[in-house]
Amino acid sequence: MPLVKSIGPLEENERLPLYHQLQRKIQASIEEGVLSPGDALPAEREIASELGISRITVRKALNGLVKSGFLSKKQGAGTFVTTHMEKRLTRLSSFTEDLASRGWVATNLWLSRTKGIITPEESLALGLGPGTAVMRFKRVRIADDRPMAVEYATVPAFTLHSVDDVQDSLYTALEQTGHRPIRAIQRIRAVNLTRDLADHFHLKEGAASLLLERRGYNIDGHAVEFTRSYYRGDLYDLVNEFVD
Amino acid sequence: MPLVKSIGPLEENERLPLYHQLQRKIQASIEEGVLSPGDALPAEREIASELGISRITVRKALNGLVKSGFLSKKQGAGTFVTTHMEKRLTRLSSFTEDLASRGWVATNLWLSRTKGIITPEESLALGLGPGTAVMRFKRVRIADDRPMAVEYATVPAFTLHSVDDVQDSLYTALEQTGHRPIRAIQRIRAVNLTRDLADHFHLKEGAASLLLERRGYNIDGHAVEFTRSYYRGDLYDLVNEFVD
Repeated sequence: MPLVKSIGPLEENERLPLYHQLQRKIQASIEEGVLSPGDALPAEREIASELGISRITVRKALNGLVKSGFLSKKQGAGTFVTTHMEKRLTRLSSFTEDLASRGWVATNLWLSRTKGIITPEESLALGLGPGTAVMRFKRVRIADDRPMAVEYATVPAFTLHSVDDVQDSLYTALEQTGHRPIRAIQRIRAVNLTRDLADHFHLKEGAASLLLERRGYNIDGHAVEFTRSYYRGDLYDLVNEFVD
Repeated sequence: MPLVKSIGPLEENERLPLYHQLQRKIQASIEEGVLSPGDALPAEREIASELGISRITVRKALNGLVKSGFLSKKQGAGTFVTTHMEKRLTRLSSFTEDLASRGWVATNLWLSRTKGIITPEESLALGLGPGTAVMRFKRVRIADDRPMAVEYATVPAFTLHSVDDVQDSLYTALEQTGHRPIRAIQRIRAVNLTRDLADHFHLKEGAASLLLERRGYNIDGHAVEFTRSYYRGDLYDLVNEFVD
């Protein structure tokens, strides 16, 4: 389908640079639902000839929208309107498992893996006394090249042999030591991202984010996980089903 | 407990008006957890004499914090640090019922109650054909004087006799006609509030909000509700429990 049908023509006399105009028009079409998740965009050269602008301008616009998460590139297949990630609130599954089940690839950008002594906040959350040794894992969770969440996890040190036990999935590591959570309480809030957090997503400071605060318990009922994850609001939805 | 222990002294030589300084100090103490949800503040005259400022200044500061939701006044009992509203994601209950179960009072500020013809978006959400008659309910939902959510609900016209059926609770009205949802799918997202929405909460444009998008089904499996609710992020949490 010609892109111009979705976004309308560009205006020669506008003050914005052309790539910026094109970005805004595509973004507006996505937000208004004219372009839907999964829709393929025409090839760069088709867009360029259709709108009478250079391929460089088109590429610049599309790259910006990929960076901000509106569009996704698939190797050899072209550019698509991004599909939101949906997490069903029915199963206690890990990020890595959630993505694998939909054929996406989860990767981590590790910020730190450290040992330390429990903070008052962690102590309250985990119900463990002051002085308890813990391990902390900070990372950016990435889904198919898109940064999706910044995660801060704290586990009591007795649950793992070493911080290097955790490679991709914390839950896989805890499973191997017999401490995988089988029950969890999760609090869901909406918060504005700080500058530091927003930078990880290439989003603006203040962008809305889902903060998931989770406390997990192993089969013996011991608290083994306190995790705070900031999911980007523009790409991540939670879905739950009620049955009366 | 003297308030000054929590918030520290006011600075005479600051540029901000005193009430504004006091507001900021109290708000910071809440955000840092020095003051906790449910904590009582000393009486106005105690705060005034303790800090050496007028009661009018104290009142102005406290009223501002009540308006923005950080503090709550309880008739005859004084001023308290606001307790977040928690909604458990286990039961399909209405806002009115949720509040009643914790002894809070739910009220509505009605924005509109109208009849009309289904929009393409509603048609998609409810799985009903174009031309279907619907009723729409727009309101601000208020918990104990605090605006908590802006809600847009659409129901097919066959589920109610008239828009006036809905006084406090939509679910109560639907129950009386036998169309109360017994199953629902809910999508949870974080979004930045538009100026219009933020105004309802006395919050700044862009404040983070939980957007709950719910489709409800009656006992015959017919879609009878499509509701979008914007809950203020600073006061409303969802809680869910996972069991493997």
